[in-house]
Amino acid sequence: MTEQEQPVADVFSAACSSRPVLQHLTGRWGALAMVALDRAEGPVRFGELRRRVEGISDRMLSQTLGQLERDGMVHRTVHSSIPPHVEYTLTELGARVAGPLAELIELLEAELPTVMDAQAAYEAAS
Amino acid sequence: MTEQEQPVADVFSAACSSRPVLQHLTGRWGALAMVALDRAEGPVRFGELRRRVEGISDRMLSQTLGQLERDGMVHRTVHSSIPPHVEYTLTELGARVAGPLAELIELLEAELPTVMDAQAAYEAAS
Repeated sequence: MTEQEQPVADVFSAACSSRPVLQHLTGRWGALAMVALDRAEGPVRFGELRRRVEGISDRMLSQTLGQLERDGMVHRTVHSSIPPHVEYTLTELGARVAGPLAELIELLEAELPTVMDAQAAYEAAS
Repeated sequence: MTEQEQPVADVFSAACSSRPVLQHLTGRWGALAMVALDRAEGPVRFGELRRRVEGISDRMLSQTLGQLERDGMVHRTVHSSIPPHVEYTLTELGARVAGPLAELIELLEAELPTVMDAQAAYEAAS
């Protein structure tokens, strides 16, 4: 038996390093931030992103972007203008990861009437 | 101008009913539960699912499945055997929604080395 050189990632395993990465991408705001960056064509300023993701606080957006930057999904550029400003874009990996997230969101938006019917039926039965 | 009959779902809007549905599907455990059900071929018992999604508690799995059932993603069947047992499957909508979630998880598992390199570079720079 040869030694396994590359450990296999398994997000279902509690100890796998892929699990926190999944949590950052989904979590409370991760998916919305990723898809907002994906839909923007070009770099997005912090304030624009905060307005796009309605309801997010400065603190939560900052934390969400920091996690995504650390995971290699988001690239942060500081422009030394006066006043200085910060812009965000998806990395190449981030753009690939945003694909299924955008698909999920589009599907949910399209199927919202089905979901709301299911919710009404559930409430009626319980 | 004709009246708009069908409201447009927009998950970026804080008040849109699609947003809690997205949260249930992603959240702390939603994506893992959905993909575990998708990978299982056929109905899955509660205990099997809990073992598959490592680290989840009974209480969290129960809450996660309840939300997904209410949203029309998961179907719950109670068999009146002795002892009675409960099985879960994805609904038709749930199976469609599980597609992009499975894609996301597979991509993250495959790209984990890239993510870990990014994390190491981030830590070294900060």
